[in-house]
Amino acid sequence: MAQRTYGEIPGYPVGSTFENREMLHDAGVHRPLQAGICGGQDGAESIVVSGGYPDDEDYGVEIVYTGHGGKDPNSKRQIAHQELTVGNAGLARSQFDGNPVRVVRGAGGEKAYSPATGLRYDGLYRVVDHWHTIGRDGFRIWRFRLVTIESPDEPAPPPTQDAAEVGPVGRIPTVIQRLVRSTAVANSVKRMHDYRCQVCGIQLETPAGFYAEAAHIRALGRPHLGPDVPSNVLCLCPNHHVLFDAGAIYIDVSGSVRDTETHEELSKLIVTARHTINPAQLEYHRDIHA
Amino acid sequence: MAQRTYGEIPGYPVGSTFENREMLHDAGVHRPLQAGICGGQDGAESIVVSGGYPDDEDYGVEIVYTGHGGKDPNSKRQIAHQELTVGNAGLARSQFDGNPVRVVRGAGGEKAYSPATGLRYDGLYRVVDHWHTIGRDGFRIWRFRLVTIESPDEPAPPPTQDAAEVGPVGRIPTVIQRLVRSTAVANSVKRMHDYRCQVCGIQLETPAGFYAEAAHIRALGRPHLGPDVPSNVLCLCPNHHVLFDAGAIYIDVSGSVRDTETHEELSKLIVTARHTINPAQLEYHRDIHA
Repeated sequence: MAQRTYGEIPGYPVGSTFENREMLHDAGVHRPLQAGICGGQDGAESIVVSGGYPDDEDYGVEIVYTGHGGKDPNSKRQIAHQELTVGNAGLARSQFDGNPVRVVRGAGGEKAYSPATGLRYDGLYRVVDHWHTIGRDGFRIWRFRLVTIESPDEPAPPPTQDAAEVGPVGRIPTVIQRLVRSTAVANSVKRMHDYRCQVCGIQLETPAGFYAEAAHIRALGRPHLGPDVPSNVLCLCPNHHVLFDAGAIYIDVSGSVRDTETHEELSKLIVTARHTINPAQLEYHRDIHA
Repeated sequence: MAQRTYGEIPGYPVGSTFENREMLHDAGVHRPLQAGICGGQDGAESIVVSGGYPDDEDYGVEIVYTGHGGKDPNSKRQIAHQELTVGNAGLARSQFDGNPVRVVRGAGGEKAYSPATGLRYDGLYRVVDHWHTIGRDGFRIWRFRLVTIESPDEPAPPPTQDAAEVGPVGRIPTVIQRLVRSTAVANSVKRMHDYRCQVCGIQLETPAGFYAEAAHIRALGRPHLGPDVPSNVLCLCPNHHVLFDAGAIYIDVSGSVRDTETHEELSKLIVTARHTINPAQLEYHRDIHA
């Protein structure tokens, strides 16, 4: 297992610039000379966002990043599926382990947020989601949503114009209103199911009452932009919330809960007449996980 | 069920002042004329922090708030145990449901953060923990830890001098370093147990590998100030993490996991020679939950 260094590298504050990948390597901010992800099974410590993957989306305070692998070194086009291995597995592991990822932007990236030349260390981000999709070249790519970790030392990149529309990602004025709206929808669904998990039926009971979580089927954030409505929410126990979000389980067209790897039926989704679920959202979830 | 209004009241931004409780009531910012908590079984929407309970601790960006009930109206002393009912149950429910709580400070509170006269709306806080303890007068009191929800509209109260020593509560320069240290301890414990829950033995498997959570036995934040070391951490599945933190289960001196209400043995804590657990921390957890 590689020795990982998570977090800031002393001596290289946010905004530090580097002429080239060698200097970035020597500083220890991003050690590989070519790979966009520094990571493996045990976690990922840094990424370079430089426009190498056409599917990358950079919104400053959040980044939808494409995993690596499957590219033809000459044409730079995707010629094979990407796997959840090496750096891709590392980014997913850093999500689960809560470790921060150093983000470096290069001159080839999104103009609004990238340096004009060379490379710039832009601070620590947290991986908040991962899934797969079919990329522009017709092959499966893994995607990772990263969100800046704000600290007074590290001013966030400027938010995009329409950031307020898509999710609680930056220091945007509407965050409280959205929070309130979102908890109302979430809690209405939990009450429709009396805090019972729709996958396993468990009702977690505590001295302060029942506990359940509201899981958005199609996530609210970029690039999914799922709606915050009851038909896009499931009432789940925390364990099944983790498994659903990580794509370990999915719901098929007949309402069976299935294991993503074996496709074995694990249970039937528990439904109630009061709560209508939009099948298109379940299909979206299957498309990116199953 | 009372009609609840969570979040900011339009027309009353952070810093709005009120001469007395009647004006606060009329504004809808905190509706009860006497009670410190506006809430019930279904949630709590606002509290007043005004020094009425000697056990209250106000650190600006975080508050350790005492529940209500059990006080003699004349002597103002605690003469009976508090129960997890009415507003106390409401604060716990707002924690579970993720609803924000309006915080109003009155002139009788902690000098550094309270208005000189009258009452002041100080913004939205989130309930992050609840537990019970024996208060200064010898009776059980319920306690709630609230942490400010920061937004650009709502500057946080100034942090206390030693805030940097106790937890990730404000916008303090060391937050990232602490984050990194904390994840290292947490992840070391998860690996010692191979991501297997020490209560139920489940190993949540996802396409990206195993998932587990690190639960601090004695919480890191105020007022517990538990240490961030492996002997104060359990490896739990998310469900048992919720139940342990909410005090629905506890670990007895023989290592049995028991239901807090019935004291029934649910399982034996799964241990490994590599991971030494400090029995004093388990005792602390029992004291405040069992």
